[in-house]
Amino acid sequence: MPTKSKKTKNVRVAAIGGLGEIGKNMYCIEYNDKIVVIDCGIKFPEDDLLGIDYVISDYQHLIKNRDKILGLVITHGHEDHIGGIPFLLRQLPGIDIYAGPLALALIQSKLEENGLTKDCQLNEINEDSVLDFGEMSVTFFRTTHSIPDTLGVAVHTPEGIIVQTGDFKFDLTPVDGQPAPNLQRMAKLGSDGVLLLMSDSTNAEIPTFTKSERFVGTSIRNIMGAIEGRIIFASFASNISRIKQASDVAIEQGRKIAVFGRSMEAAIKNGIELGYLDYPKDTLIEPKDVNKVSGDKLMILCTGSQGEPMAALSRIANGTHKQISIVPGDTVIFSSSPIPGNTASVNHVINGLEEAGANVIHGKVNNVHTSGHGGQEEQKLMLRLMKPKFFMPIHGEYRMLKIHTELAQLCDVPKENCFIMENGDVLEVNHEKAEVVDHFPASDAFVDGNGIGDIGNAVIHERQLLSEDGLVAACATVKMKTGQILSGPDILSRGFIYMRESGDLINQAQKQVYHAIKQCFREQQHVNESMLNEAIIDALQDYLYDKTERKPIVIPMIISV
Amino acid sequence: MPTKSKKTKNVRVAAIGGLGEIGKNMYCIEYNDKIVVIDCGIKFPEDDLLGIDYVISDYQHLIKNRDKILGLVITHGHEDHIGGIPFLLRQLPGIDIYAGPLALALIQSKLEENGLTKDCQLNEINEDSVLDFGEMSVTFFRTTHSIPDTLGVAVHTPEGIIVQTGDFKFDLTPVDGQPAPNLQRMAKLGSDGVLLLMSDSTNAEIPTFTKSERFVGTSIRNIMGAIEGRIIFASFASNISRIKQASDVAIEQGRKIAVFGRSMEAAIKNGIELGYLDYPKDTLIEPKDVNKVSGDKLMILCTGSQGEPMAALSRIANGTHKQISIVPGDTVIFSSSPIPGNTASVNHVINGLEEAGANVIHGKVNNVHTSGHGGQEEQKLMLRLMKPKFFMPIHGEYRMLKIHTELAQLCDVPKENCFIMENGDVLEVNHEKAEVVDHFPASDAFVDGNGIGDIGNAVIHERQLLSEDGLVAACATVKMKTGQILSGPDILSRGFIYMRESGDLINQAQKQVYHAIKQCFREQQHVNESMLNEAIIDALQDYLYDKTERKPIVIPMIISV
Repeated sequence: MPTKSKKTKNVRVAAIGGLGEIGKNMYCIEYNDKIVVIDCGIKFPEDDLLGIDYVISDYQHLIKNRDKILGLVITHGHEDHIGGIPFLLRQLPGIDIYAGPLALALIQSKLEENGLTKDCQLNEINEDSVLDFGEMSVTFFRTTHSIPDTLGVAVHTPEGIIVQTGDFKFDLTPVDGQPAPNLQRMAKLGSDGVLLLMSDSTNAEIPTFTKSERFVGTSIRNIMGAIEGRIIFASFASNISRIKQASDVAIEQGRKIAVFGRSMEAAIKNGIELGYLDYPKDTLIEPKDVNKVSGDKLMILCTGSQGEPMAALSRIANGTHKQISIVPGDTVIFSSSPIPGNTASVNHVINGLEEAGANVIHGKVNNVHTSGHGGQEEQKLMLRLMKPKFFMPIHGEYRMLKIHTELAQLCDVPKENCFIMENGDVLEVNHEKAEVVDHFPASDAFVDGNGIGDIGNAVIHERQLLSEDGLVAACATVKMKTGQILSGPDILSRGFIYMRESGDLINQAQKQVYHAIKQCFREQQHVNESMLNEAIIDALQDYLYDKTERKPIVIPMIISV
Repeated sequence: MPTKSKKTKNVRVAAIGGLGEIGKNMYCIEYNDKIVVIDCGIKFPEDDLLGIDYVISDYQHLIKNRDKILGLVITHGHEDHIGGIPFLLRQLPGIDIYAGPLALALIQSKLEENGLTKDCQLNEINEDSVLDFGEMSVTFFRTTHSIPDTLGVAVHTPEGIIVQTGDFKFDLTPVDGQPAPNLQRMAKLGSDGVLLLMSDSTNAEIPTFTKSERFVGTSIRNIMGAIEGRIIFASFASNISRIKQASDVAIEQGRKIAVFGRSMEAAIKNGIELGYLDYPKDTLIEPKDVNKVSGDKLMILCTGSQGEPMAALSRIANGTHKQISIVPGDTVIFSSSPIPGNTASVNHVINGLEEAGANVIHGKVNNVHTSGHGGQEEQKLMLRLMKPKFFMPIHGEYRMLKIHTELAQLCDVPKENCFIMENGDVLEVNHEKAEVVDHFPASDAFVDGNGIGDIGNAVIHERQLLSEDGLVAACATVKMKTGQILSGPDILSRGFIYMRESGDLINQAQKQVYHAIKQCFREQQHVNESMLNEAIIDALQDYLYDKTERKPIVIPMIISV
């Protein structure tokens, strides 16, 4: 056997997404020209990404290295871990995907929706699976999170074990039927020797141990026990444990259950098929029948707990929902915490519901929510179980990653062995040392409708400007040889100010454009369209800012003849 | 090899102390006529045990079975785990004792004080020690608590592993130099299969994860950083980590340190010898020199954080301390929580200190204390690590044991496999089943000065009555043949009310006694002393209760001639 080159002795670890952000998790572990990919998520756009449906990663690193890819291993079925799969498969058909039963069912639905079922091989795994990839192998350990079937991943390489925790909390008393975290297996990895730990940083700013889901169940039971009217229960569709806990209480109270929202319907269908959920006959009723059941015998399960404008709950709140109007006596339970950035939207929905007469119960006040991610004590517990030589915080914004490395240092990982990385940074690690040696492009790619990557930051910036100050267009037909203005200039605007109510402003703006065109022809010898455009933009922007302190996008539309 | 009788196949597990109480921990694990004893503690008397110094266990079960005892294994050096050793050795000399370095040093001091060094063999152990006792062997696992060198104990029997956790929290970031809990070893025991888990129940009522000692260090540093005057720092002498954290900050601030209180002096001496504490030359000063150092350059470490009346701090608070009087600008830090039952005494000391002009900083408000025992999350973590077949909560009052069994059930130990026991109850357990089959005497024994066991509950009850309402004695010299009262009756009282200020009450009481004696002779033919005593007690008790609503102990003292 020939001596291997230095390069092949290192494991190369990188994030395609998931570092410096919450969302679009995707990591790759490379050894000797073979790559194991872990997760493929989307990120939900923040409020400033106007008109964008999702954000995914730029997959060009994987496309370039397509022949090295051994497979895509999925930790769990949340969108920020599986949502990118359809977009990846369009660019890289034929990848083998390995996932637990629930995640697999959710992926299957996605592939069916997108007509991609033939573009990959789906393989069901559980925590006892071993993926034998030759020099590398992959094993798993059971964790707990806000969705069942959550796995941590251990990639065994000749240089040592690379552990990626997936999303986790240590829920030591998970709700019925779900197993506790496999502490023994984690400790065994620690005893065997973990080279690099890549661990979930989401709650690195929370100093405590996250409450068990069971604890939330108790609160939900107490709260629902005191409600006499109709209950509208909103949570993440993926939080099947939560849906089960609320459903169990509703069933005990003899309530029928109606489900609103496409993702909630899909989640409940999957949950029933996989045995996580169980509804007695005739408990689930059709949305159209909700008004046939008296309020005290009804619970509505719905999406929209994040204030999403098109979700059922927002439409209920603003009175535009077809089947449901709030009546006094209704109680709406938000069994969730607003993701930062959604707070305003959620508050807007809560206000709407309360104004319509509902009683609204939400997270922090009432213990009707707990995080799916472990706090500092659990992050330290993972560190102490794994006892890694090197540490790389993942799944978090910069400040979370930073705090997580401080925790690692308190747990005896030397500071120089902790790596706060960015998407695209490549960490080379072997049994002796680790360093960041390379970087590949891994920027955001925006998904807008069906288009991927046809929208860049410049487009988003324009949408931001449009959303803030609107646009003003100036049209004129100009004879380019003479400078004669044959028609116009006409001014129209969208999202700016009510021009009609400011007749003077329009008149003056028209005059500004007129003079700008005339001046252009006076001062220049060979006037072309772009010179006119520039002159109009300058003149109109200055004038409008001067009069209104706004900066609408100015669009000159010269028809040259 | 002959078939063993059924009896020898069972492991017999019992507590000699520690169940239904916080204190005097002592457990025994018996297999095939051999006994491993774990810990030998005292209990500090509660307020209603008047005049009692300590409470220990009745050791008669061990005395009867002296030939079976293999050794006494110590989990850590707190008084409620080692304090009973001198009393045990007086009754059972020659026992082998196994303990970690710090506990061993503390035991050694006790034995020297009591002249008992020749009565046992002391053996130093650490978490890697294996005690080979033939059919049984004992191994250890490192835990964390409020004293260094804390071990959990695993007794390996042919029927399975019996784990006794000792006192523990999961301090995942212990202060400098101390190791974290050995999660890998605990998980390995769980993988190998734990037959019975006996686990610390102290904080079963606290739903959270107990804060790390390091967190307290940060608070102490912040608080001490803002103090300009003299600092008086009070904590348990055994809490060496706490003493180290306060000392480190004081040293950084250029303060000299004076130590008050015998147990604090001993703790610091041991801590230095064993390497847990380190003071630069000339940092520690003699108590007599405290007034030679300016306040901003001095910290006083002292005992008395529980309000003990004879401890340094109480004497400082009430102005009877020889060297130290409180002056304005002094800050007293209570780095402890009052043990329930001591709250009133602690408040009394705090009031005294504040009245004298000190600024007092205490536990809950300022994060200057954290418990040494794990909360519910840590108790569940221990259960999940050990995955026991049977469970027996130890180290706690009944309600704590009760809640702890509920946690065990949430962690998948069946209810019928959980045993809430009392001191003296014997649990027989084999690899298939467990049941309580026997009970031996294991009552409290009171230590009052040098006497052990010469004080029983009746004496304590009398002390209670005396302490509540005092005593009233009636003396008279009576000629028994005639009934003539030769002198008296005289009335004297202690702890009742100021009789002198109630001349009328005395006069009337004398008359009651006089009439009672006379009536006795009138109505009875053969009057004896006990008849007179009874008559006097009845008369005087009724009269005094009628007039004062108090029930002093009435002591008739008839001198019969």
